[in-house]
Amino acid sequence: MTGHGLTLGEIARHIGAELRGDAALPIARLNTLKDAEPGDLAFLANPAYREQLAVTRAAAVILSAGDAEGFPGAALIATDPYVAYARATALFAEVQFADVQFADSQFADSQSADARLAGSPGAPAGVHPSAVIDPAARVDASAAIGPLAVVGPGAVVGAGTRVGAGTVVGANARIGARCRIAANVTIYHRVCVGDDVVIHAGAVLGADGFGFANDRGRWVKIHQLGTVIIGDRVEIGACTTIDRGALGDTVIEAGVILDNHVQIAHNVRIGENTAMAAYAAVAGSTTIGKNCIFAGQSGAVGHVTICDNVVALARCTLSKDITRPGSYSADLLMEETPKWRRNAARFRQLDDMAKRLRKLEGKFERES
Amino acid sequence: MTGHGLTLGEIARHIGAELRGDAALPIARLNTLKDAEPGDLAFLANPAYREQLAVTRAAAVILSAGDAEGFPGAALIATDPYVAYARATALFAEVQFADVQFADSQFADSQSADARLAGSPGAPAGVHPSAVIDPAARVDASAAIGPLAVVGPGAVVGAGTRVGAGTVVGANARIGARCRIAANVTIYHRVCVGDDVVIHAGAVLGADGFGFANDRGRWVKIHQLGTVIIGDRVEIGACTTIDRGALGDTVIEAGVILDNHVQIAHNVRIGENTAMAAYAAVAGSTTIGKNCIFAGQSGAVGHVTICDNVVALARCTLSKDITRPGSYSADLLMEETPKWRRNAARFRQLDDMAKRLRKLEGKFERES
Amino acid sequence: MTGHGLTLGEIARHIGAELRGDAALPIARLNTLKDAEPGDLAFLANPAYREQLAVTRAAAVILSAGDAEGFPGAALIATDPYVAYARATALFAEVQFADVQFADSQFADSQSADARLAGSPGAPAGVHPSAVIDPAARVDASAAIGPLAVVGPGAVVGAGTRVGAGTVVGANARIGARCRIAANVTIYHRVCVGDDVVIHAGAVLGADGFGFANDRGRWVKIHQLGTVIIGDRVEIGACTTIDRGALGDTVIEAGVILDNHVQIAHNVRIGENTAMAAYAAVAGSTTIGKNCIFAGQSGAVGHVTICDNVVALARCTLSKDITRPGSYSADLLMEETPKWRRNAARFRQLDDMAKRLRKLEGKFERES
Repeated sequence: MTGHGLTLGEIARHIGAELRGDAALPIARLNTLKDAEPGDLAFLANPAYREQLAVTRAAAVILSAGDAEGFPGAALIATDPYVAYARATALFAEVQFADVQFADSQFADSQSADARLAGSPGAPAGVHPSAVIDPAARVDASAAIGPLAVVGPGAVVGAGTRVGAGTVVGANARIGARCRIAANVTIYHRVCVGDDVVIHAGAVLGADGFGFANDRGRWVKIHQLGTVIIGDRVEIGACTTIDRGALGDTVIEAGVILDNHVQIAHNVRIGENTAMAAYAAVAGSTTIGKNCIFAGQSGAVGHVTICDNVVALARCTLSKDITRPGSYSADLLMEETPKWRRNAARFRQLDDMAKRLRKLEGKFERES
Repeated sequence: MTGHGLTLGEIARHIGAELRGDAALPIARLNTLKDAEPGDLAFLANPAYREQLAVTRAAAVILSAGDAEGFPGAALIATDPYVAYARATALFAEVQFADVQFADSQFADSQSADARLAGSPGAPAGVHPSAVIDPAARVDASAAIGPLAVVGPGAVVGAGTRVGAGTVVGANARIGARCRIAANVTIYHRVCVGDDVVIHAGAVLGADGFGFANDRGRWVKIHQLGTVIIGDRVEIGACTTIDRGALGDTVIEAGVILDNHVQIAHNVRIGENTAMAAYAAVAGSTTIGKNCIFAGQSGAVGHVTICDNVVALARCTLSKDITRPGSYSADLLMEETPKWRRNAARFRQLDDMAKRLRKLEGKFERES
Repeated sequence: MTGHGLTLGEIARHIGAELRGDAALPIARLNTLKDAEPGDLAFLANPAYREQLAVTRAAAVILSAGDAEGFPGAALIATDPYVAYARATALFAEVQFADVQFADSQFADSQSADARLAGSPGAPAGVHPSAVIDPAARVDASAAIGPLAVVGPGAVVGAGTRVGAGTVVGANARIGARCRIAANVTIYHRVCVGDDVVIHAGAVLGADGFGFANDRGRWVKIHQLGTVIIGDRVEIGACTTIDRGALGDTVIEAGVILDNHVQIAHNVRIGENTAMAAYAAVAGSTTIGKNCIFAGQSGAVGHVTICDNVVALARCTLSKDITRPGSYSADLLMEETPKWRRNAARFRQLDDMAKRLRKLEGKFERES
């Protein structure tokens, strides 16, 4: 992560921060306040780390105007230092040659700081000779298709999009512009992906929803005739699955971020900018609002509607329609096992305890 | 999904429904009562939607004899309309060219309605030139092997089976007839797959079971010498894993349906027609009966036996042998977080509360 | 699993057991006491199976000195019979041609018993002609690269390591010696893997950690600039994901074993010899100690430290720093649904019940 050739002034301009100090100061890499070495750019977003400001070895720090007051060093002053740091990471990101990598490795070092500052997606364009592109597919000349990737008939790959090694894009699928699709991703036929979408390895878009009719004990498959629609700026984690719709489509709206191992069932709709952590699961035909947050292993049952701005904490299943924004829970806090077992055993007596309590109250009232 | 060229009469014959109306009526696609447009075939299976029958724009409806009585339109009358609808979806299903797709795309449109009505698996036969087929493998002439798929030495691929792009079939694995194996599936050596099996992208069959002996702190691997046996008509979801047995085999019996992200550990046996939703997990050496239903994130511990017709509701771990059919639960209903926290905090006092309740009862009895 | 051509004496030497009986006794395969046929080698590790010793048909048994006393048959006497059995399985393991398989199938039978006894990794060395190896990659001459695998520029593959079909090794990744990497694995750029590591199909190492800053409702991606470091002798299950660090690295120390579908978030550190069962999940920046055991669907929240020798039972989330070794729980035992529902309904009254109990205690005290 060294040798990117960026200066503090270039970074300030890119992230929209106010520069305090020498614009020509070379920055080797990003780091935390605690671990920063001379030449590094650090950031202060969480007040809990404020005391590290006094002792950091960083060449410069991204921070708020308030925190900058007492800080004598070079600074990039931002309204939201965490967002500013996030924007800065884009300047230090590598082209992920795990995803797209070329036998002619002279391309490997071609992503200059200039290209990154210009917002270039960074990888050299072109189709690796080992990729299998159907003659009836349309791959934009500025797209990059990695080794041993497959693009099916009728599929479209947009400008600047990178498709990783071993990834399969099915027939008549449409991938927008500037997407970064990692290695070994599977995109089934007719799936539509917007612009600026990131999809990680092992993700599966458009497999059949889990639909079966039971015919006197035997399951009869309901072929899934819909597809999956992914909006712009969506991020999809590794091994995450989004099933195609049964008749209509499964829809992930713009700006949604999904962590690894997330499961989105058929005919679900996820509203804009909703975030879901690992193993979050939404059952079929449920609609999730905008700006919701699903913690790890949370989820929602099928055929319900969740309004905007709902937070489902860890392991909480939203089990009915939710019309009031707010936080919902269903998980118990851990305890050491011996203590836990004593309480858990009582849980099995809880209904009995409630009845006995009521009876005792009744007796007490009668006697008083 | 248009232009399939099917008529109402053809559909009636295929799904075994009684035709009421014009057999020559062309049907464009399947749809819900609510969303149907003229030319669509809809279905009424759930009584909750009965009132939509009066206002649907569908050209015809699949429904029961009872519901057909008051309905003046064209109808396909079936004993079980949901099963009839399921059978109809097969006529409208596309060949999934995400799975098997050919550089010579003239084949892409070759699945005629006639072929579908004849029950043809639909994809053109043949081995894509980019696939790697070991000379010692046997691929039936009517099978279709997608681009960049691998079939190992000694492996057998049966008649009419389609193997998707990037899928790896290990040495000496045996795949039956008419299977549909999607892209980027991994089938390890010696795994046996029956006939008419569907396997979705990212699924892994035959990875090592999680077996280790602990040698004074260090884990010593127990090599997994068994394999995986998959019965006929099984469906396996995306990113689902079925581990090979340690000494004996892991067995999935005929007609089992597994959703995405399911985990079946080594030496498990799953009985016929059992269904498991996403993230269901069965630990090692457990036997599950026939016709069981496992909801999302449910499961069973290792080394137990679950009888037929058991239902495990969401997040319920079956923790001991079950000999009585029925429904089992272990999950609490969500609440808004502030209210939840008050109750959850009391959970940690539950044993104490039970003792205090008993004590109060004792005092009351003594005083009365 | 027959015809391995091993004798009881060879096995005794390999596993370090004391031989009692004929060293030249041919052993066909390993089996359980119960299922063993003549010619099989069985083992007795769990006292619960001791009575099977009297009736087993096995040619010989691995057992402890104590159990050997009353046993008249051929025996391999070991201090820890389970560990001895584990070591024996290595002699009966096949080369997994699902992972690395060669078009020239004459190699398929080349792993002789001699080779296995010599500890040879077993697969023939070489690069399959269909694999795509970047000219700037370095693959050891004794490594084996399967069909349609990809090794990126700057990547290193060590001596004796096998890379399965369809697996992608990213730019500048480093794989140590004697690793066994199955099919369709994705290893992102710059990930470092130690020696003797086993990685199963569908695993993803080095995808982006789930890091975003929220800019007035929109998520801004924090590019993940660190990588993943995997120690020696680690085993990683199918569809398991280990995310790359945001600034620093995600570290899995030597001897860790991870089952299928495990999720390790960015900047996590897992201590030596810790074991995690399926769906175990560790959130970002958490440090787990050595020799911990995580049961299925257990996990830890982010930014906490868990000491050595902690056991998290099934579905238990470790929700704060743990400084005391021991077992922790958070899961309730299943019950039949009608009974469960009565108790679960009372859970929602628990705070109320606690208050009423307190009130009753107060009244009783005042009246007494």
